[in-house]
Amino acid sequence: MDAVLRQSKSMCPFLKKTSPATLRALSTSTRQSSPGGGSMSNLQTIARRCPIMGKALAVQTAKHGKVGLGGVAALGAIRAFSGKVGAGKAKLHTSGKHGARAVEDTLFGREKVPYPQHVKPTKPAHHNTAKFDYEGFYNAELDKKHKDKSYRYFNNINRLAKEFPRAHMSSKDEKVTVWCSNDYLGMGKNPQVLKTMHETLDEYGAGAGGTRNISGHNQHAVGLEATIAKLHAKDAALVFSSCYVANDATLATLGSKLPDCVILSDSLNHASMIQGIRHSGAKKIVFKHNDLADLEAKLASLPAEVPKIIAFESVYSMCGSIGPIEGICDLAEKYGALTFLDEVHAVGMYGPHGAGVAEHLDYEAHINGQPRGTIMDRVDIITGTLGKAYGCVGGYIAGSTKMVDAIRSLAPGFIFTTSLPPATMAGAKTAIEYQMEYQGDRRLQQLHTRAVKDSLSERDIPVIPNPSHIIPVLVGNAELAKKASDMLLDDHGIYVQSINYPTVPVGQERLRITPTPGHIREYREHLVSALESVWNDLGLKRTSEWAKEGGFIGVGEPGFQAPEPLWTDAQLGVSDVVKEMKAAGPVGVMEALLERETKETARAVSAAA
Amino acid sequence: MDAVLRQSKSMCPFLKKTSPATLRALSTSTRQSSPGGGSMSNLQTIARRCPIMGKALAVQTAKHGKVGLGGVAALGAIRAFSGKVGAGKAKLHTSGKHGARAVEDTLFGREKVPYPQHVKPTKPAHHNTAKFDYEGFYNAELDKKHKDKSYRYFNNINRLAKEFPRAHMSSKDEKVTVWCSNDYLGMGKNPQVLKTMHETLDEYGAGAGGTRNISGHNQHAVGLEATIAKLHAKDAALVFSSCYVANDATLATLGSKLPDCVILSDSLNHASMIQGIRHSGAKKIVFKHNDLADLEAKLASLPAEVPKIIAFESVYSMCGSIGPIEGICDLAEKYGALTFLDEVHAVGMYGPHGAGVAEHLDYEAHINGQPRGTIMDRVDIITGTLGKAYGCVGGYIAGSTKMVDAIRSLAPGFIFTTSLPPATMAGAKTAIEYQMEYQGDRRLQQLHTRAVKDSLSERDIPVIPNPSHIIPVLVGNAELAKKASDMLLDDHGIYVQSINYPTVPVGQERLRITPTPGHIREYREHLVSALESVWNDLGLKRTSEWAKEGGFIGVGEPGFQAPEPLWTDAQLGVSDVVKEMKAAGPVGVMEALLERETKETARAVSAAA
Repeated sequence: MDAVLRQSKSMCPFLKKTSPATLRALSTSTRQSSPGGGSMSNLQTIARRCPIMGKALAVQTAKHGKVGLGGVAALGAIRAFSGKVGAGKAKLHTSGKHGARAVEDTLFGREKVPYPQHVKPTKPAHHNTAKFDYEGFYNAELDKKHKDKSYRYFNNINRLAKEFPRAHMSSKDEKVTVWCSNDYLGMGKNPQVLKTMHETLDEYGAGAGGTRNISGHNQHAVGLEATIAKLHAKDAALVFSSCYVANDATLATLGSKLPDCVILSDSLNHASMIQGIRHSGAKKIVFKHNDLADLEAKLASLPAEVPKIIAFESVYSMCGSIGPIEGICDLAEKYGALTFLDEVHAVGMYGPHGAGVAEHLDYEAHINGQPRGTIMDRVDIITGTLGKAYGCVGGYIAGSTKMVDAIRSLAPGFIFTTSLPPATMAGAKTAIEYQMEYQGDRRLQQLHTRAVKDSLSERDIPVIPNPSHIIPVLVGNAELAKKASDMLLDDHGIYVQSINYPTVPVGQERLRITPTPGHIREYREHLVSALESVWNDLGLKRTSEWAKEGGFIGVGEPGFQAPEPLWTDAQLGVSDVVKEMKAAGPVGVMEALLERETKETARAVSAAA
Repeated sequence: MDAVLRQSKSMCPFLKKTSPATLRALSTSTRQSSPGGGSMSNLQTIARRCPIMGKALAVQTAKHGKVGLGGVAALGAIRAFSGKVGAGKAKLHTSGKHGARAVEDTLFGREKVPYPQHVKPTKPAHHNTAKFDYEGFYNAELDKKHKDKSYRYFNNINRLAKEFPRAHMSSKDEKVTVWCSNDYLGMGKNPQVLKTMHETLDEYGAGAGGTRNISGHNQHAVGLEATIAKLHAKDAALVFSSCYVANDATLATLGSKLPDCVILSDSLNHASMIQGIRHSGAKKIVFKHNDLADLEAKLASLPAEVPKIIAFESVYSMCGSIGPIEGICDLAEKYGALTFLDEVHAVGMYGPHGAGVAEHLDYEAHINGQPRGTIMDRVDIITGTLGKAYGCVGGYIAGSTKMVDAIRSLAPGFIFTTSLPPATMAGAKTAIEYQMEYQGDRRLQQLHTRAVKDSLSERDIPVIPNPSHIIPVLVGNAELAKKASDMLLDDHGIYVQSINYPTVPVGQERLRITPTPGHIREYREHLVSALESVWNDLGLKRTSEWAKEGGFIGVGEPGFQAPEPLWTDAQLGVSDVVKEMKAAGPVGVMEALLERETKETARAVSAAA
């Protein structure tokens, strides 16, 4: 036995470090690691975790037809290990070295595969051991969601292209106004987009028919990626099934491939980035939302030469806050980090060409076609969506040629998936080009946002202040938020989804309202009076009530300076109108402006159609 | 100074434990922690690792515009610490406790976020330290791909709906025949599918406009999921952006949520499953491809009550082998495991309603509408795609109501992404329904597959034997496989992508040919003669040559029993024709059959249009 142990010790780092006394203790102590079955010694438990021993045990077990629960003594396991080491090793080495790659080529085709598979294996012999109750598990998980009010009930909303922003419910007669779509600019019903899609559908069919590498690469992908690169003034771009996939795949790939990479992530980052970072296995450091000092402290704590990615957003979807892009670029430069900017809620919406907040920050330079040296130019990786302001579906990254080529070549989430349909890519390209040339939609959207925010403010209905196009109306309770949403839908024909945990933190539940160019005065007045009525009926807190309690997340907080909108008065043309209409009150100015912009937009659309 | 130190010691566990002498020594000793830059005292190095001091130093640094490399004395840092501790602490304690959840609610809205963000933080002061060279890294990664010949060159292939299976290259005049698309049945050009899509596009627009929870749930999603559930005779189904996402999200969610879950994965599983398993963090055990004995040994090694998932495919895309579904169901039952079956390359293609291989195995029962107790009924989770035989894009899972609801409620990859466009969902639903009612396309596809396999076999061109519709033609060398593909395209106007590592193992490189109902005799004869010519020109190995070397992965292996096609002669109607045409030779039978089926399919399509 001693010889066996000595031999084992010479090969196994665990045995080498562990005293015989400890090994003996481990082999006789047990723990209930298998509640329903027999007991297992602690040494066996440890052995099963070992890549070598685990397999040796499995082989032995297979021979005996049953895992050796309780039967195999710990020193027997050691014996199995030492005795089988030759054969075991040879066998393991043919499979073990390619652990978990995109292709696991273990013995592929070399085995005598049982063809066809109708040959029955061993008859199921029903064990008496308790098996895991999967349905019970699903049930328990769903119960948890019901209990904490995070269970989601989907509303059947069929947005009507010809009656935008109206939709019908499951019955075609039951119509509602949609106030929470991310089709921010109504591009989903844009005549030019639809025309392109119809034509492409007829000419190239419904689907791409393959991955990008195998028959799914085409002129539509090439054209769309060139357009996206141009939009962001980058060298290259790459399209994915969605921006969820783009964020997930890109961060997971970079984080896992860059040696010892550290990813610094804004605390309010979207789930797709959080998943991508998790999937990368890289070290993650969360910095406080939009807090440059905190970010710098964290960057400064890392060695200069270590690769770092700062992952953040321009417009944070659920609160409408805007990231300090320039400051983050400065820090990234100073500390040698990559900047990874998600412009999902900003593309189409900000900047003279709709390239997002980064473009908006150098409005004049970009209008003049001088992107070099701008903030957008300094961002390394920009990600965006084709499914929100551009009205279609899909996502993308844009950046340097080499970066894009590396992701194209390495990211399984890009490589191993069917391309978007030609019609989708062609439609998205048209939408981007349309918005690159025309500012009317996003300006009108901003004006409608201002008008709704103003009206709600006048009514003491609490809007979480922000400089963007998102209107988060604070409720502060999951059940009440759902009730308010249901009441708006059932009693007022207005659809605004309630946003509860985990999309927002508990206690910050809200209604998230997103105006579009189509939400004209009539719809707005209806919305505001409906909210007024729901706020009364449910006794929801007003801004003044939040203020009495000391304020909360910017609502009614004493001394809180409401941020200026990112789209300035000058950029929206408000200043000119004010000059023209000195006599009129502020609401009058807004309405005049809205009417003017609405007319202009209608003209642009009909010209385009 | 002593007073400051005393005060600091009362608050800092490190200072409390460390003698003044040691502190002094640390503050004067230095180490090259920043290889390219200045030196830093050891005390500073330690201080930067401290969550309190690190921040204090960063704040001070920000003020001085530069991290205090060498400049700030250690005791100065202690002074900064003790002086700022009050404010610093209050600020720090509001963050940090919610590490990395789907929503990281740290300080959300509570901080005085610098709005707008035009206020510049510290100016970038270029360090002399060596920063990580990102472009160099991308370059090195790409170089590796070039060197091992796994770098992918995409071909610009524009599949023409009206000339299926023809496509044009980047120039419209340059036409080729596509022989490697996964639009296996040509549903991408099916008139009924296109009609539905056009109508839906006009009525409901280009995109869904939101996630399923926020304005992206509609009658198209409801209808499509009901159709999928019906197809697989399951209680429920859930649609995702792609089947890559469906596999990834479902396995990652189940594997991470089921307590101590173990996932048993076929060694040839698709990248999406491999990623999902990796992302789950669950223990993974790879079993040999289609090897029930190996799977059983591995199942038997696990405690009965531990939740287990067996993840496998029906048709393995790159070799065309077919999984032993019934045997796996038996084992799953015996050992209390969930079965997770990817039918991506089989839906639409097998079974009387196109539900896949699981349906095909009980052909008669399903024709008679008796799914209960069948193999398909015994599979817990079936995943499939809308982007291959159904000609559109998207993926799904089908299974029990509770399982589907749990994934719907828990999987970030489902929750946080924009829904597929209404037109895509409506088109996919039409495609599934069409294929549920009509068997002609998949039968014709199988007949074309047989015809190509027969012709290649006659010419001694090596096809990796399998019972499915995939025709993997063995080349066995990455460079030659690409050359063969290029030559087919450039010299013969035939597009067949070469399949190299990592999609298949090194040494098993191949051309993967996929016939469709549209690949009539004329195209087939062209393909076969083109392959003949390429095989000659490049001196590629014939089946007989592989045989001389002892055979390889079923090609030319002595005694290798080629598997019978899954679609039997009886199911394809071959037997009837043979009876009718006793006089004709085998090729004559095949051609007669093909002509008959082709005519029938054309009739069905024109009736549908």
